[in-house]
Amino acid sequence: MANKNVELASGDQYPLTGLGLWKVPQDACAELVYTALKLGYRLLDGAADYGNEVQAGEGLARAIKEGIVSREEVTVVSKLWNTYHAAEHVEAACRRSLKDWGVDYFDVYYIHMPISLKYVDPETRYPPGWSYDGTPTGKLELEDSPYHQTWAAMERLVDLGLVKNIAISNMAGAMIADLMRYARIKPAVLQVELHPYLAQPNLVRLAQAFNIHVTAYSSFGPVSWVGISDAVVAKCEPLFTHPVVVKIASSYNATAAQVILRWATKKGISVIPKSSSEARLKENLDNEKVELSEDDLQAIDDLDVGLRFADPAGIDPRLAMYA
Amino acid sequence: MANKNVELASGDQYPLTGLGLWKVPQDACAELVYTALKLGYRLLDGAADYGNEVQAGEGLARAIKEGIVSREEVTVVSKLWNTYHAAEHVEAACRRSLKDWGVDYFDVYYIHMPISLKYVDPETRYPPGWSYDGTPTGKLELEDSPYHQTWAAMERLVDLGLVKNIAISNMAGAMIADLMRYARIKPAVLQVELHPYLAQPNLVRLAQAFNIHVTAYSSFGPVSWVGISDAVVAKCEPLFTHPVVVKIASSYNATAAQVILRWATKKGISVIPKSSSEARLKENLDNEKVELSEDDLQAIDDLDVGLRFADPAGIDPRLAMYA
Repeated sequence: MANKNVELASGDQYPLTGLGLWKVPQDACAELVYTALKLGYRLLDGAADYGNEVQAGEGLARAIKEGIVSREEVTVVSKLWNTYHAAEHVEAACRRSLKDWGVDYFDVYYIHMPISLKYVDPETRYPPGWSYDGTPTGKLELEDSPYHQTWAAMERLVDLGLVKNIAISNMAGAMIADLMRYARIKPAVLQVELHPYLAQPNLVRLAQAFNIHVTAYSSFGPVSWVGISDAVVAKCEPLFTHPVVVKIASSYNATAAQVILRWATKKGISVIPKSSSEARLKENLDNEKVELSEDDLQAIDDLDVGLRFADPAGIDPRLAMYA
Repeated sequence: MANKNVELASGDQYPLTGLGLWKVPQDACAELVYTALKLGYRLLDGAADYGNEVQAGEGLARAIKEGIVSREEVTVVSKLWNTYHAAEHVEAACRRSLKDWGVDYFDVYYIHMPISLKYVDPETRYPPGWSYDGTPTGKLELEDSPYHQTWAAMERLVDLGLVKNIAISNMAGAMIADLMRYARIKPAVLQVELHPYLAQPNLVRLAQAFNIHVTAYSSFGPVSWVGISDAVVAKCEPLFTHPVVVKIASSYNATAAQVILRWATKKGISVIPKSSSEARLKENLDNEKVELSEDDLQAIDDLDVGLRFADPAGIDPRLAMYA
């Protein structure tokens, strides 16, 4: 197999290319996970908030039962949602995700965002989403759970053996540097929006200087955000048909998607694309076979315009976490 | 006098227009402060790092002695430098700045940056600057003093009566929201780089939603950064001669500087320009007399290109606090 792993600070292996489960419908999730594992995927990036962990676990269980993979060969990932940041809720939230996946440990468990929302009992609603009453227009209620207390609770998950690596997502410069000051167990991975229109070179350098591995989400840029961030989507052209990308792709007999993914993995940044098509799943996994030159990487670097699609500032000004 | 105050969360008054003391030479500082107070300035924005607090204090003392102002009428500001973030060094650092200024309390005391550098004894070097050995090319040494511990030490300064308001500078979205979760005494002011090329609307909205007053530094943009951030300066034209600014200025018979400052103060954002010329000091203070229209404000808002001049990421990748 051509696909590579990187070694996390803990010594654990972590694939460069994985499968992201955001927006995967429940009724397609088990089959998608099973198919991906059969194709060679070994990183499954889930989250309580995605609402499909039970189904993802079913797909994993089937692949294990059929001898396609062992549990130890797969990097299973989940994320603590914003409503469970209070120290007393972290373990229960992790155990719920473990139960849903049907596994007894996560390889990587993230704090999904540096945002703390008022606790919603899982008996009331699960996953709870953003608004306190669960309606799309419902009021947002913040909770005063400081990140350093949530992080200490995350460290206890490692102590308990529930989680092998703890990690951070949607975090920015100064707050990462601050976390490094108080973390007893350092974050293993930083997962952020990262694509040719939002290359974040300073953030990547900061993470690498602190020995934090970077995973990119929304690798394909605008295409994932149609219907969600349409005003930002309208500001740029789709990456799949961008002349710079298309030209490089044709020169390697590769697809645009492969070139966009390889631009990240060639730099040692993991990617977690998803697709509902088996052919495209295979194509995405094979991005690592494309050998981009330094000039190609630079040409794609030059597309960076600092365009961000995932930004909860529009929900409430106090959520402007990238401001 | 036309100049206005805003009311901080503590109920204290704080001027919209003040005098910034960054880069004011020691041998000119006492006279500049004295002249500014005579002209009507009531906000003096200093910092240990500026290396001129003794001289600033001399200017203040002269104005008080001559009956131009009373201590209570002036908002005296200082900032905790990066090498004093350890809880046990905060009070001594504040007392040193108080002694240098010759005052027994600060109206506002900031954490200068969310960066913690290894302690340098003031007997060894004061102010200590960035590198641990004090040379321009010397090595940078980080210190693991978490911001929440530094903040708790800042709160004790209020308890001790050394400081009336504690404040934050060079802070970004998610970390401000996190501070709001654990702060017993909330930050009164946020001081950040803010000018027409870096308008930071999301950051301003976040601060206002948390009832934190915003003070802009480097209001004139590139002109303050010639010789420091020349690569960024080269990316834009000077604001004083920008056609949009010049056109608005001439329509009000005002100067470009006044229009640029008024663009901020009209929105309730304080400014702290400096000048070595008495005429320009007066002109800057009088920005509040210019009545810009909503269309004028919008025309200047439209100049925003997210261009930042003050960024220590170039010193060390771990200092990329805005990444």
